[in-house]
Amino acid sequence: MPVLPNFQLNREDQALVGAVLAGQRRALAKTITLIESTRSDHRQRAGTLLHALLPNSGNSIRLGISGTPGVGKSTFIEALGLHLIEQGHRVAVLAVDPSSSCSGGSILGDKTRMELLSARDEAFIRPSPSSGSLGGVAASTREAMLVCEAAGFDVIIVETVGVGQSETAVAGMTDAFCLLQQPNAGDDLQAMKKGIVELADIFVVNKADLDPVAADLTAGQITGALTLLRPSAARWQPPVLKVSAALGEGIGNFWQQLGLFRQTVGETGELAAKRRHQSLSWMWALIESGLQERFRENPGVRAAMPDLSAAVENGSVSPTLAAHRLLELMGDTTGI
Amino acid sequence: MPVLPNFQLNREDQALVGAVLAGQRRALAKTITLIESTRSDHRQRAGTLLHALLPNSGNSIRLGISGTPGVGKSTFIEALGLHLIEQGHRVAVLAVDPSSSCSGGSILGDKTRMELLSARDEAFIRPSPSSGSLGGVAASTREAMLVCEAAGFDVIIVETVGVGQSETAVAGMTDAFCLLQQPNAGDDLQAMKKGIVELADIFVVNKADLDPVAADLTAGQITGALTLLRPSAARWQPPVLKVSAALGEGIGNFWQQLGLFRQTVGETGELAAKRRHQSLSWMWALIESGLQERFRENPGVRAAMPDLSAAVENGSVSPTLAAHRLLELMGDTTGI
Repeated sequence: MPVLPNFQLNREDQALVGAVLAGQRRALAKTITLIESTRSDHRQRAGTLLHALLPNSGNSIRLGISGTPGVGKSTFIEALGLHLIEQGHRVAVLAVDPSSSCSGGSILGDKTRMELLSARDEAFIRPSPSSGSLGGVAASTREAMLVCEAAGFDVIIVETVGVGQSETAVAGMTDAFCLLQQPNAGDDLQAMKKGIVELADIFVVNKADLDPVAADLTAGQITGALTLLRPSAARWQPPVLKVSAALGEGIGNFWQQLGLFRQTVGETGELAAKRRHQSLSWMWALIESGLQERFRENPGVRAAMPDLSAAVENGSVSPTLAAHRLLELMGDTTGI
Repeated sequence: MPVLPNFQLNREDQALVGAVLAGQRRALAKTITLIESTRSDHRQRAGTLLHALLPNSGNSIRLGISGTPGVGKSTFIEALGLHLIEQGHRVAVLAVDPSSSCSGGSILGDKTRMELLSARDEAFIRPSPSSGSLGGVAASTREAMLVCEAAGFDVIIVETVGVGQSETAVAGMTDAFCLLQQPNAGDDLQAMKKGIVELADIFVVNKADLDPVAADLTAGQITGALTLLRPSAARWQPPVLKVSAALGEGIGNFWQQLGLFRQTVGETGELAAKRRHQSLSWMWALIESGLQERFRENPGVRAAMPDLSAAVENGSVSPTLAAHRLLELMGDTTGI
C-alpha cells in the first residue's frame, strides 16, 4: 500500500492551483477559504490543493508579531508592510486569534485597520477565522501561510495577541518572533513571565515618541531581564529596539535587525533545522489532538468519564486506575 | 457495565494492606516494588493494592525539592528530615530522577547519602527506579507517595534534579515546590529561565555560611527576578531563604515558612483545589501517554512513519496531510 493516496486534481482545482501560482488574489482567497472550512469535502479539497502548492512554498521570511491589545500592532505592521512594499517585497498578513472563537470578532477583522496597507496590490491581509479552537485557527493560519508563499508573497507576517498559547503557536510557525511592548514598563514586563523571553528573537518598544524616558526605562528593563534569563553564550542576543510606528521611526532599523537575525541563523543552518523541526512538531501536535478527539468522542469513554473524573478528583480512585480503565473502555467499544 | 471492575484482594494482599496501614516498613517497600515493576501481573496487583490503600492516603505535607547537582539537596533533606523527626513527624523521601534511565544510577541510589536519616525508624528513603521514562518514574513515585501516606508518613519529600520536565512533574504532585540555589549567583540564575520562577513556592540559597556576601547577592538577585516576573498581587510571595544545611542553620525557619505557605493556601481552599487539579491532570497525562503508545505501536503507523516523517521534514508533504494519513492508517489496521 502506498504511504499516501494518489492525489488527483480535477480540472477546476488545476485551474485554481495555476491561478494561485500566478499570484491571483481571488484564487488565493478562495483556497484559504477552503482551508479554513470545517466541511469535510472542503477539507479534502484543501488537502489536495495544498499538496499541489507545497513545492512552491517556503520562499518567504516568516515573521511572528505579538503584543497586548493597544500596543500598536496594526500600526506597526502597516508601517512595516508599506516600508517593505517600497523595497519591492510582497507582504501577506495573517492572524492567529484565540479570542475570536469567544467574541466572534477577530483581531484583523476590523476593516478600518491597516487601510493604507490593505489598499495595496502588493499586500494580502487575511483575518483569523471567526470560530474554532486555537489549534484549528493556528492550523489554518499555518496552511494559509504556505499558500501565500506559493502565490509569491515573500514576507509573511503572522500576528497574534499576547496570550501564552497563541504566542507559542505563532513562534512555532515563524522564522523570527517579535514582541511589542509599550513604554510604560513595570506592568508590561509581567507579560514576560510566560516564557516569552525564550520565544522572542526581537523586542520592540513601540510608541517610543510618546514618552522617550519611559521608553528608555522599559528597554533597559527588558535588556536587564534578558541578561538574567537568557544564556549569554547564545549566538543571537535579542535586540531591544525603540520604534515609533505611527511616525515610521525605527521601522527600517527593525527590518535590518530582522535581516541580521535571518543571516545569523541562516548561515549556521539553524533556520533550516528550525523549519524542519517546526513541521515535524506540527505533525505530532495534530496527531495528538486527533488521538484526543477520538478518545473524547468514544461512546464508552463518554459514558464512564463523568463518574471516573469525579472519583479521581475526590481521591477515591487513583489517576492511574482511571486512565487505565478509560483506555480499556476505548478499546472495548469501538473499532478505531 | 460498572465503571470500575470489582477489586478483590486475595488473602496475601489483604495481609499486605494491613501491614502497610500498620506502618510496617517491609510491607511498604514490597508494595512500592510492585508499583515500580513493569510486569503486567505485578502492575495489576499494584493497582488493586493502591485502590485499597487510597482512602488512607492524602494526610501528609507533600514537599518537592529541586536543585542542580552539588547544590546540597541530600544534606538539606537530611537536616530537614532529622529536624522533623525531632518534632514527632515521620518522613518519607522519594526521588524522581530523569537521568536514571540513562546512567543506570539514581539520585538516591548512593547508600552513603543521608546516613543519619536513613538509620532512623521514623524515616523511609526510597531511590528512584533505575530505569524507565520520566513519565514512568514519575508515575511510580506519585503512587509510592500515596502508599507512604497510607503507612502513616506525614511529610513526604520528593526530590529531583534541576531538569525542566522532572521539575514540572514533581511540582505537579506536591503541595509546595522548593528550589535550592548555590550562593554563586549569575550562572545559577540561568536555571530560572525554565519557568521555574512560576513553579517554586520557596527559594533556598543553601551553603550560605561558605560565602555570606555571595549568598546575599544571590538572594537579592532571585528577589529581583521575582519582582520582575511574578505578579505582585498574588497572595503568596515566595520567600528567598538563606540556609546552611550542613550546619543546620535556617532549617527551622524553612519549616516555619512552609507551614505559613500551607496555612495560606489551605485557608483559601487553594490547596484542596490544587490537589484535585493535580489528580485530574495526572489522569489526563496518563491517558495521553497511553494514546501515544497505542499510536506508536500500531503496525500501520510504524510502517508509514519513516517515509512520512522524512517527507514532512523535507517539505514535500504537509504536516496536516501526514497526520491525517497516519491517524487513518491506525484506524485501518487494528481494532484498538
